[in-house]
Formats: sequence, C-alpha cells, structure tokens
Amino acid sequence: MSESATPPVFEHDVPGTPPAIPPPLEDRAPAPRRTPAEEARALVASTNVGTLATHSEDGYPWASLVAFGSLETGAPVLFVSTLAEHARNLERDPRASLVVATPHPRSDVLASGRVTLAGTVERPNPELAEVARDAYVEAVPTAKAYLDFRDFSLWILGVERVRWVGGYGRMDSVDAASYRAAEADPVARAAAGATQHLNEDHADALLVMAQRLGGYPDATGATCASIDRYGLDLDLETARGPAATRIGFASPVNEAGGLRGATVELARRARSA
Amino acid sequence: MSESATPPVFEHDVPGTPPAIPPPLEDRAPAPRRTPAEEARALVASTNVGTLATHSEDGYPWASLVAFGSLETGAPVLFVSTLAEHARNLERDPRASLVVATPHPRSDVLASGRVTLAGTVERPNPELAEVARDAYVEAVPTAKAYLDFRDFSLWILGVERVRWVGGYGRMDSVDAASYRAAEADPVARAAAGATQHLNEDHADALLVMAQRLGGYPDATGATCASIDRYGLDLDLETARGPAATRIGFASPVNEAGGLRGATVELARRARSA
Repeated sequence: MSESATPPVFEHDVPGTPPAIPPPLEDRAPAPRRTPAEEARALVASTNVGTLATHSEDGYPWASLVAFGSLETGAPVLFVSTLAEHARNLERDPRASLVVATPHPRSDVLASGRVTLAGTVERPNPELAEVARDAYVEAVPTAKAYLDFRDFSLWILGVERVRWVGGYGRMDSVDAASYRAAEADPVARAAAGATQHLNEDHADALLVMAQRLGGYPDATGATCASIDRYGLDLDLETARGPAATRIGFASPVNEAGGLRGATVELARRARSA
Repeated sequence: MSESATPPVFEHDVPGTPPAIPPPLEDRAPAPRRTPAEEARALVASTNVGTLATHSEDGYPWASLVAFGSLETGAPVLFVSTLAEHARNLERDPRASLVVATPHPRSDVLASGRVTLAGTVERPNPELAEVARDAYVEAVPTAKAYLDFRDFSLWILGVERVRWVGGYGRMDSVDAASYRAAEADPVARAAAGATQHLNEDHADALLVMAQRLGGYPDATGATCASIDRYGLDLDLETARGPAATRIGFASPVNEAGGLRGATVELARRARSA
C-alpha cells in the first residue's frame, strides 16, 4: 500500500511551530498515515488550480495562477493561452514548478498541506495529447468551450522533483519515481462530505473514539478535521486545553465506497473497547 | 480615488471566455470600478497567504506557499525560516514574484481575481525593519511566537512589475508607481460579511436594484457576488438565462463604516426609480 516506508522528515522549515498541545494520557501506537508521496498525489488529485512558476523574459521568476489536470502518473497537464505570460515563458524556457495547496485549508493556511512539483514541460505526442486533453477536461469541464482554440497549447509537466509540506513540522522531499508510483488517495474526493457528515451526525462516536482509541480519555469534545484512506484526524477539547489525535482504520480503504464501513467499524471498536 | 484613469485592457489572456450572457434591456452608464492598481492593492490587502516564485539552485523556478504582510506602499513583507528552500533561493538570487489570489473565490477560480507582483527582495534597514515586522505580525498574528527566532529573516519585496487579472477578459499591467500610489480598498475586509448580510436579509432590495438601476427589468432573482468601495456586483436570474450587472454607489465609500449607508441609499434610490 505505502510504496515507501520512509517516514516524514521533521525539520524546522515553515514559519512558526505548532501550538503546544496536551499529550495523550495513554500511549497508543501511532496510527498509519499516507506516505509523503501519497500525500503529494492526494493534493494534486484534490483540486484543479495551482500556481505555476516560470522564468520570465526579464529574468525574474514569474508566479501565476493556472488550472490543471493530471495524468495517471500524477504529471500535471496544462492548457494555456499562448498569449498568456506564462505560456510565452514556457515556450522560451520549459523549466517550471507548480505548487498545489489544500483547496479548503484550515484557518491557519501554513498548517495545511501543499506540494511543489518541479520539472520540465513538454508538448505531448498526438497519442498522449488525446489522453492529456481528456485529463484536462475531466479536471476543468469548462475547458470544453475552448478546447479547439488554436491559440491554446497543451503541456505536460514532467515531474523531476517533489517537495511536500503537510503543515508545521510535517514535510519531506519525494523522488520522482516514488511520486509516479504512488496512488492518489481513492477517498480524497469523498473526504470533505464524509467529514461534514461525521461532525453533524456522529459527534458522539468521534468522542468515544478519541477517549478509548485515541489516548485521550479526558476528551470532552471531538470533531473530525480530515479523513484519508488510512484513518481520521480528530481535533479535541480537553480540560487540559485543545488537543488532537489520529485514529487508524482497521485496514486501508481502497475505494471511496469503503469509507462508511471503515468508520462504522471504528465506532463499534471504540464502543466495545 | 482613482489615481489612474486607464481602463482595464481587454485581451484574450486567460483560458476560456466568459459564458455568453443576455445583455441588459436598458442601457445604463457603466458603473465605476476600482482601477487595476486599486484592484491589485485590494487583493494584497485581502489575505496573508500567497505563492512565491524564486530561482532554485538547480536553475528551476520554484513555487512555494508563503505568509506575508504588506507595507503602506503595498510592498509585501516576508518573514521566512532560513532553512526553507525559498529563503535559501532569495539569499542567492533576490529576484522573486508573489501571486496573491482572492481568498474566497467563486467556484470557477479562473474567474476570480489574482495579481502577480515581481521585483527584488531586500533586507530592510533597522528602522524599516521595525515597521516591516509590525506589518507582518498584523497580517500573521501567530508570528509573534517566532518573531525573535534567529533563523528567520525579514525581507521586503520591492515591487517593480505588477500584472493583475480580474477574471475572464479583465486584466491589466500596472506600473510600480501607480501600484504604490493606489489605495487598498477600505471596505475590502468588511466586504465578505456585508455580501453575506445582503444576500441573507435583503434579496428583495438587490432584485429591485437589478431591475431599476441595473438595466435588467426582467430579472427574477439577484444575489450579491462582491462589494467594493465603488459599488456592488450582482449575479442575476432572468427568463433569458443567468446574467450579471454592476450597480455603482452614489459616491465612493471611504471607510468600512460607510458601506451600510451607501447600500441603503442604493436601495432607496432603486425603490423610488
């Protein structure tokens, strides 16, 4: 499942440190998490807008907003007006990087995930162009209206270097092969809806999970902050102050439809613990 | 208020064209808008997160997320860990650009505003450093916790080139002097709350504005899409399909507190039109 066993490297690389939180009262084995390569793929799969950096004619690095799709390898597909500055930049110098950030970040955006993919753009051959165009339209349905415009060009960013930041102290570099080989999280698209459902209708179950499986028997409130194929991240209230924990599923979820069963199993396990 | 009379240049520079919308049934003088320089300043004032492009050591342009504050001149202030890749890049090559996008974009993000500020970063002298640090903390209050860390450095981006994109077909380049001289919109911070209030409690007034002041007597529904110091942008429903119009205030609003009075005046004027 996890194609790489490398744990995230912890380093002091982003502004600030997380606020000190009360530690768990009971030791628990750390819940499984996505690998950095999987985190990177999940981010790229989760949205269709990123910021591109290119070399501008006057020598400055140029940041601009772009829409993108992605191939099965996770390579971003760009479809840009040849009149746009970033398109002219790519014609002159194909080196680029794309940063993709969590589309619905927490209020503290530097605590949210983002990834930079650096590499060289190429125009696809006719066969790949068809695949790339389909991938772009799947991500950006409004593109159908201008897909045949002659002043737009299709580019694929060949990813050579990946830098993922998950938030304060969670970050890693990912080699290009691991990035290509990793799976985008199959529950990524369903996660926001599932999170909302849990918080609205199952706050009681979340609290029991935190108390009996999450190491915080003194939790007085629990809300789900995020869901991925490996488990739930919970924000907690305790008499000792706000805290957070992570609860792992019994086994990784391999399709969006499996999320419900995995969560129900967690709730049952918590209640009988 | 408008420091430049240059209207936005319309060009085919972003993917796609706006969907064709039914034209107004009554001609109206175009409502006043922010100048491109004012749009750029409003965007920079509206959020504390952007994407920075720098030159990486291996020659690639490097895109990464940063928090920022800004000086009264609109110059972005960065406060970055010297261990972060973008910080190492700036030490080696001070050329950079920062893209700032509308924090709460519409669902079609390419229809939303964004601006690229390109220039050269400099370390401020001690006097300016104090002002810059205050500006950064005002924008990023959590920075108080690491303001005295020795492995963080303060940079000011001296803005040399500005490219603003307001959405489909609304864009312009802004010279550095106009950018510096323009005012950030005083209602920018209050706009989201005011928009929500109008939509929740005054949908009837918005509809009358659209019908009697906006050139769409056949509008059957109106919601406020955005508010700025010069007026309201309305999204409309009509029997001819979805449409949009803009209604100008009687005079520009010069402080956030003036928004309510200006909107009430519009509603009265519409009802007596």
